[in-house]
Amino acid sequence: MDDDAANEILCATHRALCTHGYADLTLKHIAAETDKSKAAIHYYYDSKAALFTAFLGHLYEQYADRIESISGDRPREHLQSLLDELLATGDESPDEGIRTAMVEVRAQAPYDDAIRTQLTRFDEVLAEEIRTILQDGIDDGSFDESVDPELTAEFLTATISGAHTRHVAVGYSMDRVRDATRQYVETRLVAETTKVTP
Amino acid sequence: MDDDAANEILCATHRALCTHGYADLTLKHIAAETDKSKAAIHYYYDSKAALFTAFLGHLYEQYADRIESISGDRPREHLQSLLDELLATGDESPDEGIRTAMVEVRAQAPYDDAIRTQLTRFDEVLAEEIRTILQDGIDDGSFDESVDPELTAEFLTATISGAHTRHVAVGYSMDRVRDATRQYVETRLVAETTKVTP
Repeated sequence: MDDDAANEILCATHRALCTHGYADLTLKHIAAETDKSKAAIHYYYDSKAALFTAFLGHLYEQYADRIESISGDRPREHLQSLLDELLATGDESPDEGIRTAMVEVRAQAPYDDAIRTQLTRFDEVLAEEIRTILQDGIDDGSFDESVDPELTAEFLTATISGAHTRHVAVGYSMDRVRDATRQYVETRLVAETTKVTP
Repeated sequence: MDDDAANEILCATHRALCTHGYADLTLKHIAAETDKSKAAIHYYYDSKAALFTAFLGHLYEQYADRIESISGDRPREHLQSLLDELLATGDESPDEGIRTAMVEVRAQAPYDDAIRTQLTRFDEVLAEEIRTILQDGIDDGSFDESVDPELTAEFLTATISGAHTRHVAVGYSMDRVRDATRQYVETRLVAETTKVTP
């Protein structure tokens, strides 16, 4: 397969999804975002389902790269940067369109094995990154040794997912969840010895 | 309107939704769950949209009653009971079918004002109940006075919503989030003086 052409089709899928949402997405919409015809798209992906599975794979790579690219001097700053980035809204975030579409895609997951398999990877890569940061912080003494990295990573992944869904579905701002999450990290995870007294 | 008949139609909608999901739900499916014809349902609700808005109102009343019915001797036990009930899975919970449908309904909310308005009430009633319990606990000294009831309620509501979505979409158990949430309440919210040393 011509990688450039395939990649162009996946990027066009991204744009079409942001504009039309998942339920109304058609190959015609995707074709309108490229210089390719519907027939040419069919040449690369023989069904809408195959295209969409490839698209979720492509989106996953971007998501995983982005999560990996977020850094911080120490585990505490690293975790706060990650949470800040994932819970950013409005002008701070380029993600609004794709987040809306992803809530729709999630709603299809119970009925579609391929989508479910792909979505699991998004949650896993985030939980794994949080686990790693927490373990690093426990090892270097910045996080309290009583913190359970596995359990805490699950908890924060659920909170982030819920904040996204509520933001998309009913328009809640994520700012308050971000504030509460920051507070949680500072008061619950950070070791007593490294806390700065206000 | 004949209240009994209207109520019967809404209960039939509930059963049909659990069986067929939201995307595939038709008046025919709903009629099949009652002794009423499609025409009779039309007599009570003049569109599928009107029926569905009434159904969400009906579901909201049940949800609000259920949340209100959960009690505990003191605020700490009250909050833990509420979280346990909302994060119960499998045999412990009768909610599996409706939770799946509600994730689908949430995905429609960005495109449908009536659905969005109804869904906002579900989140609000839960956040309000958590806020009230937290304030009661601060007042009677069982929760730490530094706890911000508003912010903490938003945080826990997001976590519960995220746990439901991930459970429905990718089949994650909610047990670990429940454990982490219990731990959060005990270590972060409960006042030092009322903590029982293990």
